[in-house]
Amino acid sequence: MAESFLLQEIAKRGLSEDLIYGDRTTEKLFPRPIPALGDLIAKEELVVAGLDLFQTVFELLDPSFRFEIAIGQGTVAAPGTTIGRLAGDGRALLKGERVALNFLQHLCGVATLTRLFVQKVAGTKAKIVDTRKTLPGLRILEKEAVLLGGGYNHRFHLGDLILIKDNHIALAHGIVNAVNATRATLSHPLKIEVEVETFDQVKQAIASGAEIIMLDNMSIPEIKRAVALIRKKRPQIEIEASGGVHLENVAAIAKCGVDMISVGSLTHSAKASDISLDISHHGAT
Amino acid sequence: MAESFLLQEIAKRGLSEDLIYGDRTTEKLFPRPIPALGDLIAKEELVVAGLDLFQTVFELLDPSFRFEIAIGQGTVAAPGTTIGRLAGDGRALLKGERVALNFLQHLCGVATLTRLFVQKVAGTKAKIVDTRKTLPGLRILEKEAVLLGGGYNHRFHLGDLILIKDNHIALAHGIVNAVNATRATLSHPLKIEVEVETFDQVKQAIASGAEIIMLDNMSIPEIKRAVALIRKKRPQIEIEASGGVHLENVAAIAKCGVDMISVGSLTHSAKASDISLDISHHGAT
Amino acid sequence: MAESFLLQEIAKRGLSEDLIYGDRTTEKLFPRPIPALGDLIAKEELVVAGLDLFQTVFELLDPSFRFEIAIGQGTVAAPGTTIGRLAGDGRALLKGERVALNFLQHLCGVATLTRLFVQKVAGTKAKIVDTRKTLPGLRILEKEAVLLGGGYNHRFHLGDLILIKDNHIALAHGIVNAVNATRATLSHPLKIEVEVETFDQVKQAIASGAEIIMLDNMSIPEIKRAVALIRKKRPQIEIEASGGVHLENVAAIAKCGVDMISVGSLTHSAKASDISLDISHHGAT
Amino acid sequence: MAESFLLQEIAKRGLSEDLIYGDRTTEKLFPRPIPALGDLIAKEELVVAGLDLFQTVFELLDPSFRFEIAIGQGTVAAPGTTIGRLAGDGRALLKGERVALNFLQHLCGVATLTRLFVQKVAGTKAKIVDTRKTLPGLRILEKEAVLLGGGYNHRFHLGDLILIKDNHIALAHGIVNAVNATRATLSHPLKIEVEVETFDQVKQAIASGAEIIMLDNMSIPEIKRAVALIRKKRPQIEIEASGGVHLENVAAIAKCGVDMISVGSLTHSAKASDISLDISHHGAT
Amino acid sequence: MAESFLLQEIAKRGLSEDLIYGDRTTEKLFPRPIPALGDLIAKEELVVAGLDLFQTVFELLDPSFRFEIAIGQGTVAAPGTTIGRLAGDGRALLKGERVALNFLQHLCGVATLTRLFVQKVAGTKAKIVDTRKTLPGLRILEKEAVLLGGGYNHRFHLGDLILIKDNHIALAHGIVNAVNATRATLSHPLKIEVEVETFDQVKQAIASGAEIIMLDNMSIPEIKRAVALIRKKRPQIEIEASGGVHLENVAAIAKCGVDMISVGSLTHSAKASDISLDISHHGAT
Amino acid sequence: MAESFLLQEIAKRGLSEDLIYGDRTTEKLFPRPIPALGDLIAKEELVVAGLDLFQTVFELLDPSFRFEIAIGQGTVAAPGTTIGRLAGDGRALLKGERVALNFLQHLCGVATLTRLFVQKVAGTKAKIVDTRKTLPGLRILEKEAVLLGGGYNHRFHLGDLILIKDNHIALAHGIVNAVNATRATLSHPLKIEVEVETFDQVKQAIASGAEIIMLDNMSIPEIKRAVALIRKKRPQIEIEASGGVHLENVAAIAKCGVDMISVGSLTHSAKASDISLDISHHGAT
Repeated sequence: MAESFLLQEIAKRGLSEDLIYGDRTTEKLFPRPIPALGDLIAKEELVVAGLDLFQTVFELLDPSFRFEIAIGQGTVAAPGTTIGRLAGDGRALLKGERVALNFLQHLCGVATLTRLFVQKVAGTKAKIVDTRKTLPGLRILEKEAVLLGGGYNHRFHLGDLILIKDNHIALAHGIVNAVNATRATLSHPLKIEVEVETFDQVKQAIASGAEIIMLDNMSIPEIKRAVALIRKKRPQIEIEASGGVHLENVAAIAKCGVDMISVGSLTHSAKASDISLDISHHGAT
Repeated sequence: MAESFLLQEIAKRGLSEDLIYGDRTTEKLFPRPIPALGDLIAKEELVVAGLDLFQTVFELLDPSFRFEIAIGQGTVAAPGTTIGRLAGDGRALLKGERVALNFLQHLCGVATLTRLFVQKVAGTKAKIVDTRKTLPGLRILEKEAVLLGGGYNHRFHLGDLILIKDNHIALAHGIVNAVNATRATLSHPLKIEVEVETFDQVKQAIASGAEIIMLDNMSIPEIKRAVALIRKKRPQIEIEASGGVHLENVAAIAKCGVDMISVGSLTHSAKASDISLDISHHGAT
Repeated sequence: MAESFLLQEIAKRGLSEDLIYGDRTTEKLFPRPIPALGDLIAKEELVVAGLDLFQTVFELLDPSFRFEIAIGQGTVAAPGTTIGRLAGDGRALLKGERVALNFLQHLCGVATLTRLFVQKVAGTKAKIVDTRKTLPGLRILEKEAVLLGGGYNHRFHLGDLILIKDNHIALAHGIVNAVNATRATLSHPLKIEVEVETFDQVKQAIASGAEIIMLDNMSIPEIKRAVALIRKKRPQIEIEASGGVHLENVAAIAKCGVDMISVGSLTHSAKASDISLDISHHGAT
Repeated sequence: MAESFLLQEIAKRGLSEDLIYGDRTTEKLFPRPIPALGDLIAKEELVVAGLDLFQTVFELLDPSFRFEIAIGQGTVAAPGTTIGRLAGDGRALLKGERVALNFLQHLCGVATLTRLFVQKVAGTKAKIVDTRKTLPGLRILEKEAVLLGGGYNHRFHLGDLILIKDNHIALAHGIVNAVNATRATLSHPLKIEVEVETFDQVKQAIASGAEIIMLDNMSIPEIKRAVALIRKKRPQIEIEASGGVHLENVAAIAKCGVDMISVGSLTHSAKASDISLDISHHGAT
Repeated sequence: MAESFLLQEIAKRGLSEDLIYGDRTTEKLFPRPIPALGDLIAKEELVVAGLDLFQTVFELLDPSFRFEIAIGQGTVAAPGTTIGRLAGDGRALLKGERVALNFLQHLCGVATLTRLFVQKVAGTKAKIVDTRKTLPGLRILEKEAVLLGGGYNHRFHLGDLILIKDNHIALAHGIVNAVNATRATLSHPLKIEVEVETFDQVKQAIASGAEIIMLDNMSIPEIKRAVALIRKKRPQIEIEASGGVHLENVAAIAKCGVDMISVGSLTHSAKASDISLDISHHGAT
Repeated sequence: MAESFLLQEIAKRGLSEDLIYGDRTTEKLFPRPIPALGDLIAKEELVVAGLDLFQTVFELLDPSFRFEIAIGQGTVAAPGTTIGRLAGDGRALLKGERVALNFLQHLCGVATLTRLFVQKVAGTKAKIVDTRKTLPGLRILEKEAVLLGGGYNHRFHLGDLILIKDNHIALAHGIVNAVNATRATLSHPLKIEVEVETFDQVKQAIASGAEIIMLDNMSIPEIKRAVALIRKKRPQIEIEASGGVHLENVAAIAKCGVDMISVGSLTHSAKASDISLDISHHGAT
């Protein structure tokens, strides 16, 4: 969860892009404050996420803003329902509308896409997890949206998990050596995960003592065979499937018995949720 | 185009998310530099964009990096082709890989989606234009990617065009009054655009003297009728169609004779292009 | 207009220069809060500008500050009149006084000088417009001060108008080619302006289809001749006069029939307005 | 003197105002680098200042820039002389021209105005000193320009001198008490200066033991009388005259025998020096 | 004293290190606010410092926090006494605890160590002064803690005192020449201090006219001899002893009659004071 | 390990404190570059750490600096040995000396103190680990210094380990419930650690399934008893001892059979190592 001082920094970054030289339409039209309401309406089914950042945008423009939330974070909003209502100076509503919606629509989009994946694997033990394939500057927010959609977080940065990937292995000398090299001076909070692409590498990874094995870009039969071997040899190992996962194949992968499936598109390719902000005179409602 | 000092700032923002506490895998595996190559491969057809930012990421990690571009910005890369090759310390390749690809895949995604829309309207005079529905912190980059995909840019911020939208009209007193109010003290570089949703509003917008009229969320017949009236009354007015545009309906809209069609999804919902960075020992190739 | 989060950033930049290591005089003299008033007095005739930034400086030092404005932005204050009154901890008054006055005196100076130019061209249709010859870091504020003085804003940055200047023409191949090159992929919100120095260039600029022509450093007879030709050939072109404009010659230029006159000195050479902040014990008044 | 990392920060602030969304004229006109020269010409007599910042602007845009200085900092340039020559990509010249000149013209303006004051007091022992009436964000640069013009620096911030001013005295209980209060826990590097407005305050200031006395807004006879008393009672006290100083009265003040005269207009009201950057094809010269 | 906008910047720097990706323990344990109290307890004798920064940390996390101070800045707290009590959301207490205590324990440590040195020189006229051997980013705070412990501040930065040190002398030509070179264009607020290491240098420093002489790394007899000479030749010179000062030898140095003794360890080697924050349910007390 | 762009940011923070208004001594003494050498000498036995940051400070002041390292990071330097030699403009040496040494002496101090603790537990399996009791803004650097001294890193921030501490338990309902609550939606890279203070809590922690148990502030017999129980019940649990650890008792704690001992003083109370930078003319050596 991003603390308010971080949310403010992110919101300012967005606002600066739009307001660096003012909102010349709004300023010319409305020289004085106009009491106004803004109704936030879901135009399609979506999972609500990003409300704290949405609110922060308007508070930066006018500290006296009030935001009444009708549907909380993590809830599914049906098309047409009101997510919340803003009340304040209509000029701040007009100035902040686009930036606030850009954040909100993207984060709801991530949460909503996550939920679709989660629904596909219902009934299996597989968790849907995110990746570091996030949009730069938005990682903590996107990862929170994944949680709100029912997913789980993979590592946040290059410092909170040892993850030996294909490119590491390409430059090192074998999986077992690589795991040993990292374990030598390892911090106790860190686990070790190894990415494997072949059955032979699966065997090496088991032998290496890694706590987690990521099966990367394997076919369904390959995944099944790998899972069977790992469960037999070292059942405490957590198994992650990764690579080329989409809504059509995720259920089949889940049924192979993996513990989790990581999906890059949750964060790098979620389409924006359709949400509108309907502004009206305060007296008019 | 973003100057190098701005690219560095954006690249640092991405790198900070990943390297705030170092890359503990790479640091433990490779205590010394390893000469390495990184081949950047398009895994699907895409329009190349974002190479300057991609390169900046690695230069920040190791100023001695070299990046040889094989396929320039704005070019279509066929699946399997090499976009470029990095040469430098393999540790910097491993540390920067994810952040650099996150930028590159997103920006190629925007350019590639733009090209799809542009192709759909080929043979008409309609231009495909972007919106301010950009991902916060990435606006200038996404707008450049739109250009590389063959699109055009709408305004960049709230200060470089007077654009009187539905929510302005809701709080003001009629389109004509609104246009007059903004024109009174208008800077000469600024044009005035009005967003209209009904045929009645089209008539008001023509009467107002606005240079540009945006037809928002109209049906094909409505667009045709509006275009006909505008062309008859004040042919120098530029006409923009907007709202609910997708790959399936964009050609039909273009054929109505509008000058441009703005598409929010170019920037808010482009899926990441599939691109890989294959790292190998420098001696190995 | 600069939003409050931008004003705070600018105010902090000024305060940091003064308070990086505290106000060692005030801290030693007054270990405890002292209720105090600060009367802001115009010591000469001036146009009021910059009050929001002035207020922001003190709010950053003490959020409980109150500022009662007696004479609003854009109003002419006669010598000796009170612009406003601050009430709060006298220590914050002493700490913020210089920084707040530095901003205020400069911005009032810009507005006041603008008004002098505007008065000189009264009765003509010529607008007084500013330039990008602003003091770095203060552009949005100085441009707002120009508006408050009755002037108009030219472009804000290198992205909101195509302006082909002498140095562009020196490196390109003729005005017509230059205009064509920029128009090819032009964003619809952008106009094209061309700077010309000779009568021959005026003809080229008319032929090029530019929306605005800037007559740079021409003599009064040259301006008249250029205006006559432009009005005859393409009356919708806006005409700007520029270069070497001062209070003595601006009226003569205006009478040539140009639409606007740009004046660099409004922002780069305005003298600070004379304003004092008279601080007294709160109980003392 | 501002170190290069500080100059870069200041230059970026200026460049950001202009290039936040690119230079759309230059980018469209010149898709490829153009070797170019830029000659920096003094259009009026001026004292050179700000060359390091001027150069920094272009280096940020193109690290391969070369800048050959013909007339060094602090030198008087006659009208028409070349201050220096830039060589590099003409596009960077066009992009950086305005920002670099804005800095340069302002700082040369400060140095040049300072020199005028210094010339007026030639033959007396009075030094011309600056104040904290600087333009926010530019203090260190303006103070260096004052040195280059032959002036001296007063304090830089509220922490490097105890200066008890009229507003401090208004809130405290007498000059002697104020000086004693600050001296009690005084850091040894700090001197104490007292601002006085009446002859009675002069006597108190002498009695207080302050190292420096500032005579504020006194008439010439008052200054003479104050100087005579101070020299008689405590000759080691340094005497500063301040308030309402301009080119017409500075010589008379200097002849009163004060040690220094502080002049706010040096920094808050200097007009920009007239300097042009003439750009040409590299091959063309 | 650091103003609140500077304290916020420093507090954010600390909080960012801890909360860049949230507090995942607290967030999972407590989905809703928990009214809580936090008692700040001195676990050993210490001088209180840093309370304003401590409070700022929690206010950034939750603006509704209340902090009741029981023992003010600069006071000695006996082991076991309560310094103050926080009341607010227990989640913010848990999130901010470590960062706030890190600041507080360090600053109390500096103040407490300073007091030990001050007590050792009681009865002499020697002041204990700090140095620029501060921890980067914390200088103004550490220098304030020194004041709270009864010490005095030496210069804050390289611009508020001329201090000619051993390495300057190594590169220049003699002490007298060096002093003359700096005095030529000296700002009147600046004093000149010279560091000397030998008796011969003491003589040069006296001759140079420096206002302050620093005796660096001299033995007790050498200090005595130097003090005697200085007092005889130019009694108004302030004398500083420096180098290798610790709690065991500071009294002996003080008794040599120096005016002040500078101690680097006050800031670079103070051990953190032992302080705990005991958190409990609000209803529980 | 901190990447160069992060080191530059940290170095600038330190340099800004010193050079915000220039180095007025050095600038006045040396108007032109002076080729100089700087020998970095260990004045006492120490473990070398922080050389990359030390070097960064000088490179920011003069990019042409060369730094030749004689004794690498993590090595023990005997008193009097040369750690490295700088060559460049003597003015940059003088300007950067204090800031660079402040960083270096602190980080060597941390590494050196760590080594002392590591030596005390030699022959046991206990690792010495750091804490989050770091000096704000320096965490990544201090944690790297701990590694160089032979220690291990505990978590870096509040997001890379679930650590349920005394204050969490005070606000929650029992250890087992707390662990269950955090495990419910746990990210797979995260382990769970529980802090316990009593033998009863040890039993709860074992039952909870936590991967790591921290024995806080227990006596030697209590630690032994707790270790025995844990080893018997769930041998795979890692055991950390914490609280009140110092050089005198650390060996005894290690002999209890714990896996690691965390020591706050490594980072919050390390004294600065004694290191000098001896500057000389380049020609002089």
